[in-house]
Amino acid sequence: MTRTTVNMSISLDGYIAGPDQSEENPIGIGGTDLHQWHGFGGAASNSADQAATDALMRQRGAVVMGRNMYGPIRGEWGDTDWRGWWGDEPPYHSPVFVLTHHEHEPIEMEGGTTFHFVTTGFESAYEQACAISGPDGEVLVSGGASTVRQALLAGVVDEISLAINPVVMGSGERLFEGITGLDLEIANVIVSPNVTHVHYLVKH
Amino acid sequence: MTRTTVNMSISLDGYIAGPDQSEENPIGIGGTDLHQWHGFGGAASNSADQAATDALMRQRGAVVMGRNMYGPIRGEWGDTDWRGWWGDEPPYHSPVFVLTHHEHEPIEMEGGTTFHFVTTGFESAYEQACAISGPDGEVLVSGGASTVRQALLAGVVDEISLAINPVVMGSGERLFEGITGLDLEIANVIVSPNVTHVHYLVKH
Repeated sequence: MTRTTVNMSISLDGYIAGPDQSEENPIGIGGTDLHQWHGFGGAASNSADQAATDALMRQRGAVVMGRNMYGPIRGEWGDTDWRGWWGDEPPYHSPVFVLTHHEHEPIEMEGGTTFHFVTTGFESAYEQACAISGPDGEVLVSGGASTVRQALLAGVVDEISLAINPVVMGSGERLFEGITGLDLEIANVIVSPNVTHVHYLVKH
Repeated sequence: MTRTTVNMSISLDGYIAGPDQSEENPIGIGGTDLHQWHGFGGAASNSADQAATDALMRQRGAVVMGRNMYGPIRGEWGDTDWRGWWGDEPPYHSPVFVLTHHEHEPIEMEGGTTFHFVTTGFESAYEQACAISGPDGEVLVSGGASTVRQALLAGVVDEISLAINPVVMGSGERLFEGITGLDLEIANVIVSPNVTHVHYLVKH
């Protein structure tokens, strides 16, 4: 079985994005604050956060993400030349399966990332990601909340890493909305002054 | 200024009690699971959880709690002889100010706990607790969620200790419901295999 992992930055009240997500505020208002700890491609501010950043950025066999994580475009793609938030060389270096209701040709980026657009639902995208990763590989379900919830409800998530931020947001998008009775086991904690990194195993 | 603290056991999705609170399930269905780490007056299962238990149980100058934390009775007290969930000797060993809409004579328990019933609101109860604790003392706002939120909205909370359980409950009572933009600072983390104890300072 392909190891399937989730890695999210979350507030104390369970939000992974602020309200009013848009092209200007892709993680919603205040959402960027949840990610300050990893330095956004620069260096983290301490060795604990750098260790967690290295874990977040490790090479996977494939990635599954929701369309809103890929871009701000809703509805038909039209003649947009949008190629993701990440510039010419996205940090995935592997095939990325983007869930969408609208067909789109694959987009090959620099550094090994290719965006594949899947219109047949989460399970189909996940099966393709597993086939590429192989039974000894890893699939990252990278977000957003809706895609992670689909993975949780499908029962395929093996590990969840959370960067628990010392902030209460009060509104936005909750990671676990509608998920009940999920039992986890604490595998590892990385203590940082900025955020508490907890690595959980899902009890299947 | 009297140091004012909160100490709660919480799920990853922000719940401090399960649904359907009752005399049989005072913390709601599944809510007791959030407190397994401290052993319920027995010993904790490891030294990390015991250190967090010792911090939870330390002597305060006074305590403020909501009526639902004191007991399951709603409306008029009637002729009940209810004296709290904790038996003859509650673990507080100090005055406890219970918020209620219905007057009741104080109840003196063994070991130094006296329950005082306050019908004039949170700020009144909090002022009485501070007066008894003194400027160098400590007031614990012990719960439930509604009482903690009143303390947060009043801006009087200095420190929040959370025992973050590796469970997603999906329903029940959320600690931070309606609280927005609360910024905290991580002061200390105690790592246990059962629960992650994070001690936060409130940025005033």
